[in-house]
Amino acid sequence: MTSKPAKAAADLDDPALRDRAVRAASGTLPFDVLLTGGRVADMVTGELRAADIGLVGPMIASVHPSASRSDAARIVPLDGAIVAPGLIDTHLHIESSMITPRGYAEIVVPQGTTTICWDPHEVGNVGGLDAVRWAVAASRDLPLRILVEAPSCVPSAPGLERSGSVFDASALSEMLSWPEVIGIAEVMDMRGVIERSTHMSTIVQAGLDSGKTVFGHARDLKDAPLQAYCAAGVESDHELTGEDDTLSKLRAGMTIELRGSHPAMAIEALHAFEKLGHVPQTVTLCTDDIFPDDLAARGGIIALMRLLVGAGMRPLDVLRCATLNAARWLRRNDLGLVAPGRRADLVVFGDLDSFPVERVFVSGREVAADGVMTVPLRPDACPAPTSTMHLAPVTADMFRIPVPGIADGATVRIHTVDTPRFTRWAEREAMVRDGAVVLPDDCIYMAVFNRYGANSPPGLGVLAGWGTWHGAFATTILHDSHNLAVFGRNPTDLAVAANALIACGGGMAAVIGGKPLSVLDLPVCGLLSEDPPHKVAERFAALREASLEVASGLSYPLVKLVIGASLACNPGPHVTDLGITDGMSGRIVTDSLIA
Amino acid sequence: MTSKPAKAAADLDDPALRDRAVRAASGTLPFDVLLTGGRVADMVTGELRAADIGLVGPMIASVHPSASRSDAARIVPLDGAIVAPGLIDTHLHIESSMITPRGYAEIVVPQGTTTICWDPHEVGNVGGLDAVRWAVAASRDLPLRILVEAPSCVPSAPGLERSGSVFDASALSEMLSWPEVIGIAEVMDMRGVIERSTHMSTIVQAGLDSGKTVFGHARDLKDAPLQAYCAAGVESDHELTGEDDTLSKLRAGMTIELRGSHPAMAIEALHAFEKLGHVPQTVTLCTDDIFPDDLAARGGIIALMRLLVGAGMRPLDVLRCATLNAARWLRRNDLGLVAPGRRADLVVFGDLDSFPVERVFVSGREVAADGVMTVPLRPDACPAPTSTMHLAPVTADMFRIPVPGIADGATVRIHTVDTPRFTRWAEREAMVRDGAVVLPDDCIYMAVFNRYGANSPPGLGVLAGWGTWHGAFATTILHDSHNLAVFGRNPTDLAVAANALIACGGGMAAVIGGKPLSVLDLPVCGLLSEDPPHKVAERFAALREASLEVASGLSYPLVKLVIGASLACNPGPHVTDLGITDGMSGRIVTDSLIA
Repeated sequence: MTSKPAKAAADLDDPALRDRAVRAASGTLPFDVLLTGGRVADMVTGELRAADIGLVGPMIASVHPSASRSDAARIVPLDGAIVAPGLIDTHLHIESSMITPRGYAEIVVPQGTTTICWDPHEVGNVGGLDAVRWAVAASRDLPLRILVEAPSCVPSAPGLERSGSVFDASALSEMLSWPEVIGIAEVMDMRGVIERSTHMSTIVQAGLDSGKTVFGHARDLKDAPLQAYCAAGVESDHELTGEDDTLSKLRAGMTIELRGSHPAMAIEALHAFEKLGHVPQTVTLCTDDIFPDDLAARGGIIALMRLLVGAGMRPLDVLRCATLNAARWLRRNDLGLVAPGRRADLVVFGDLDSFPVERVFVSGREVAADGVMTVPLRPDACPAPTSTMHLAPVTADMFRIPVPGIADGATVRIHTVDTPRFTRWAEREAMVRDGAVVLPDDCIYMAVFNRYGANSPPGLGVLAGWGTWHGAFATTILHDSHNLAVFGRNPTDLAVAANALIACGGGMAAVIGGKPLSVLDLPVCGLLSEDPPHKVAERFAALREASLEVASGLSYPLVKLVIGASLACNPGPHVTDLGITDGMSGRIVTDSLIA
Repeated sequence: MTSKPAKAAADLDDPALRDRAVRAASGTLPFDVLLTGGRVADMVTGELRAADIGLVGPMIASVHPSASRSDAARIVPLDGAIVAPGLIDTHLHIESSMITPRGYAEIVVPQGTTTICWDPHEVGNVGGLDAVRWAVAASRDLPLRILVEAPSCVPSAPGLERSGSVFDASALSEMLSWPEVIGIAEVMDMRGVIERSTHMSTIVQAGLDSGKTVFGHARDLKDAPLQAYCAAGVESDHELTGEDDTLSKLRAGMTIELRGSHPAMAIEALHAFEKLGHVPQTVTLCTDDIFPDDLAARGGIIALMRLLVGAGMRPLDVLRCATLNAARWLRRNDLGLVAPGRRADLVVFGDLDSFPVERVFVSGREVAADGVMTVPLRPDACPAPTSTMHLAPVTADMFRIPVPGIADGATVRIHTVDTPRFTRWAEREAMVRDGAVVLPDDCIYMAVFNRYGANSPPGLGVLAGWGTWHGAFATTILHDSHNLAVFGRNPTDLAVAANALIACGGGMAAVIGGKPLSVLDLPVCGLLSEDPPHKVAERFAALREASLEVASGLSYPLVKLVIGASLACNPGPHVTDLGITDGMSGRIVTDSLIA
């Protein structure tokens, strides 16, 4: 656990660079860049103090009294603005923003984010090791430092669903051997860890053996199971559900990652800090899952920081979580401080209330200002994994529950999956017509087609409590195996929606009256697009609008409901490509008809 | 800077151990040891809360509600006592305590210290790489975790003194390649670093290239030199001189090590924390140099903790500096927390006012209780470097300043080194008798004999301001080259004192009336003894007493004055084996007689 160097920081240890930096700090050489008239957000002392900052190459060479130096190749006057370390996002899935790493950088770097930890869990489930190799390659040479985590749960619910790949310990060991990979991503199979399943035990062991970090996902864990989860070697959690949960995770010695995708929960955590009277050094910030339009409009870590300050957290405490605390957690002592000898990842804020971002420096280079990149991003060189829709066109007659040998007008009992999100098993009486079940008026079909070449009939379920439907909705973003799911009542609309995605390589589609109302094509793994990020954001926003016309009377956004409707790892019934599964019992029902 | 595993922590990553720990935490296996009825000092939350702690092998498996478990091979009732992580000393020289690592463990482990960072700077200066190899070997298999730092300044004042060895960058690289070595020890040659001398630049570069830590010694550095020192890659400082110095080091991003050997300065630093309103996470505690009797009677880190609490620092803040902050600084995430999955290095305190130590656990094993070791320490196996006195016996006639061809009764001018500690050049008139200078009444000789085989005449100087002398005092503890120095007026006493140390292999000797009054033999490198530590402490205390009879009228203890009298790296005149040297100008005067 003692440190060895990472290539990521080796550039700072070039003797010629250190030589120049020391001489510049001493005053015998000019700086490359000199930031004057600003105030430093000191993450160690918690002070906001006037100082100028001299940069040499990628490094901060000197932080000295204002106006005491003026010898530099370039002088940047800051007029009282605040200089903070670059923001660090300790856990996220770029896939949730439906764009490539390049596109992600284009959006978040101008927001002040300079380092992120990416768990390419979704592309891994679709495209396996090759997709993760692409994720690593596509993360290189960007003005955003992307630290990759090795997906630990591919698939998330073994036996209950079929994803595009299966990662065992040897797959994890291979990924952990790559210098870009900093550890094992959120270990979601908590039961596997606590009950010491061979699969999860050997995966966590691969992480321990690598000496890299084992990141956690400790949803609702407390008491003995939480202790056991930590004893296994898992070190962090971002699934915080409130004040008590936050306190128990901190007491267990876990590094916590306050999560931008769950603002209410993040605010709950603040009560824990109020109770303690301070914000522990093991608190960091992450975004986890942010839709592209939200990422562009509201922002990533910066949006969470504004939320926390708005909720009453001290701005410098918020900044410390997003910088120094994160850097120490990631064992990157080149990051997280505005101090001599550290990496010149810097964000210039107009103030610390709304955190307006004026300029962003990455490794000493100004890369963004006033909300936009000021340097060109290199083109995406490595070919992205596309053509991941390995299934034949869908026909309308697939959306029926046959009732062989039962006369029209008779009734049968069927299974239903009641209430979205927190699903539960239920049963219904249903009429028979033309040898099939007549779908009850308040129900819809959910069909999940394996898109990895299984050539099997879809898992077909009947959902209740999903409001009133006027069309169909299809998605290949379907946590966590990302098969092709379609939702709706009308067999024609269902088939049209499904086939629209098969044709375009995956994505999301809304259909009404047999015609596509809006199609968001996401050809990379059926999850993301190489189009310009703001274009993807606009098109997703349009699809979100269209989804409102497809279904009404829902208490939760349809786009969020559908992508979570197949989470077989969770308790309760969920429809997967294998049928209606139960994450608790492991039960699989392949026919909604109750014999 | 991303972490790779260290052998030091590999024992925690044994799959069978993790398996047992997880099952014990889950309640399906009993603990090996269960600490009941205690309160946990939570270094993350700052809480003191009731909890029981279950240990499995070297690991903490579970921290759970009091009395919720009773299944364990051994139950240890704590009756409300406080359980804290084992104390970490982030910088010290075992040599200053004149005992071996084994003896050091015997004294400090019962005080609650479980991890120390040792800079074997003194033995390195005497015995070179072989002595550092001994230091590493002698640190193994003890109930004290000894992390070794590679001495960076051997010798400290190149050209002004001759030590037993010279360490260049290749020597540093070799030491840094050893797994037991965690980085480069206090880089004392600050000017060499800031002025980019080839010698120091390549030494610091060896540290950067190793990816291990470059520990600092930034005495009185501020402003541009401090920025330059940090820009070079040095990361810490323990030479704090007060509130402002502490603040500027913290602002520079340095990890600071509050120092037990300088209590007044440590208390000064508290004012900085009061001003900031919190104790930064980059504050740690160290002892640096503690005499054996003080170490045994008052203690190491524990004495500093008591001092800081007495000065008004919150006990849990003090503990955090000595545990979690130190562990994160050392990039040892197995240390510093009482939490599941961490190493079971634990100290049981009766209270947090005077920190009475009731029990000490190291890697899950109880090793000390009520102030004494409860397990046997392995014998010292590896042969220590002795026989380091490579010089011929000294004769009384060496202590004279010849004045060839000048008649008795005439006067000459001589150089003197005035006032101990903060020395300055001065001159005197002196009478001539029998062809030599008559030593002025208020002066003494200081002679430094090279003990590394140079076979050269001693560096001979005249010191003023050293009080009234009744005998002679000799020492081979003589920072930083540790040659043989003798102090006094009477040539016979001087020779007897010097020869007493040549005969016993080095140490310290007090002589009056031509007879040794007290001799402390330190045969290992002429710096330390393999005798039982408490015996060494007693004998040093006796020597300290005797030193009071040798010289009177001193404002500072003679035993401290003599070991610092040859610090050629400091400004002002200092007598070394080469003559009277000046650390500022580099000047060397070989004859006190002014021609």
